[in-house]
Amino acid sequence: MPDVITSRDNRWLKQFRAVLRGTGPRDGEPIGVEGPKLIEEALRSGLEAEALLVSPAGEREAGRILRAAEHSETGIARSRVLRTTDRLFEGLAGTEAPQGVAALFRPPEWQFEDLLRGPGEMAGSSPLVIVLAAVQDPGNVGTILRSAEAFGATGAVAARGTADPWSPKALRASAGSALRLPVLRGMAIPVLLAQLKMARLKIYAASSARGIRWTQPDLRDSAAIFIGNESNGVPAEVERAADAVISIPMSESVESLNAGVAASLILYEASRQRRAVVEQQTQSEA
Amino acid sequence: MPDVITSRDNRWLKQFRAVLRGTGPRDGEPIGVEGPKLIEEALRSGLEAEALLVSPAGEREAGRILRAAEHSETGIARSRVLRTTDRLFEGLAGTEAPQGVAALFRPPEWQFEDLLRGPGEMAGSSPLVIVLAAVQDPGNVGTILRSAEAFGATGAVAARGTADPWSPKALRASAGSALRLPVLRGMAIPVLLAQLKMARLKIYAASSARGIRWTQPDLRDSAAIFIGNESNGVPAEVERAADAVISIPMSESVESLNAGVAASLILYEASRQRRAVVEQQTQSEA
Repeated sequence: MPDVITSRDNRWLKQFRAVLRGTGPRDGEPIGVEGPKLIEEALRSGLEAEALLVSPAGEREAGRILRAAEHSETGIARSRVLRTTDRLFEGLAGTEAPQGVAALFRPPEWQFEDLLRGPGEMAGSSPLVIVLAAVQDPGNVGTILRSAEAFGATGAVAARGTADPWSPKALRASAGSALRLPVLRGMAIPVLLAQLKMARLKIYAASSARGIRWTQPDLRDSAAIFIGNESNGVPAEVERAADAVISIPMSESVESLNAGVAASLILYEASRQRRAVVEQQTQSEA
Repeated sequence: MPDVITSRDNRWLKQFRAVLRGTGPRDGEPIGVEGPKLIEEALRSGLEAEALLVSPAGEREAGRILRAAEHSETGIARSRVLRTTDRLFEGLAGTEAPQGVAALFRPPEWQFEDLLRGPGEMAGSSPLVIVLAAVQDPGNVGTILRSAEAFGATGAVAARGTADPWSPKALRASAGSALRLPVLRGMAIPVLLAQLKMARLKIYAASSARGIRWTQPDLRDSAAIFIGNESNGVPAEVERAADAVISIPMSESVESLNAGVAASLILYEASRQRRAVVEQQTQSEA
């Protein structure tokens, strides 16, 4: 049993506090993950744990996490399992009801090509990339990534001005999807548009008002879907570059949908069209 | 120009603080609404304002609100337009960047029958009621009400154990829909099920796992859709009473969708089926 850290000036505690209460890792910083469920998700995704912090309240969950770590690709070094008191843990946690376990993970390093290929099990489907353009609410960012994984997107971009998908709030809202889905952070829109065009993805801009019906485009082909800010929509340069502006029809008394809902409806439609193809192929092969 | 309230012990300031930082109005309490946009939405919905509180930072917006109030059904009595300092306003506001205007409104009094009829302009469509069963996150509650209005639900029930749709967080997430859509709060599930059955609504329970495909039921008929808690789903008694349990197909790596997203997808499907009817009727009439 290692020593218990009892000083709030301890360098590890300071680092945990910074990331668990921060808005996402800066260059070189680890991703902070709180709570047993998300930590196990991160281990299952193959992320490398830099440290695990446990207080007495989390001791039982920690046992389960360490057993899960033994079966993961990278494990957790015994010297990096740290103990502290419940009181100090509460002082650094980012949630209202801390569960006494938190971990630091090395951020995954995704390349643009990963966004087109998708996570491991998806190989073979055509690229479907969701782009968040200035989506500022981390809860919405997490919700969109969760739906993106649920509906078979191959990757996501959190463009400049969007809340960090690896911030504690977005991570929680994503229920772990932000750690599994290939995602690029902080890209500038013009660079991204150029790369998407070069990779021959069709570009769709979601708008609450003046687009064609969202179920009209053929989303079975390689596609990038841009979701904008709820107040301002997608940037004008995206609308200009887009192959189509798409809208979801709704009652006139409502100005717009929640950005997470709009993105999810479009992603679902893409998965519906794509699944219909798979079902047809299976039938003709049978 | 009325006197400026400068004591934090003032009874009005105390009431504003309680409702703007609370979890929803108890019996006899007003609904607290912060920010110019939501206040104008509330006035447009015909709600009766009990008081308007303005600090210098909100003076300009207050002018617009008072002009809007003159054209509303109920207006705001001049004696109930209160002024305070920016510092005291910040001390009672519930948002991180307060805009210097807040108001108290008398809660609307909806009856069960209102849920079946829908807001004014909808008369004629068959009942579509969304029921939130232990949806605990106020952001999700607001998102669901916003989608409910957008997709033509006639009413909503925030059953016992669900976050209050009139809490400040839910109100904001609903972008005002929680003030326009007929909504009942705190109903017990058994009573609700009995009333829905008596009104001959079909009952659908959303589940992340074991239901029939959600697009299968005919949602053009009178329907009540139950959305449960993300961890536990809808209560067992609802699944037992339901005409069908419905699910949204998704990737196996994801356990469930965000509750707001799941509800919105089902509501959208209902609106799609219902609109298809309207479009057909219009065509055959043409």
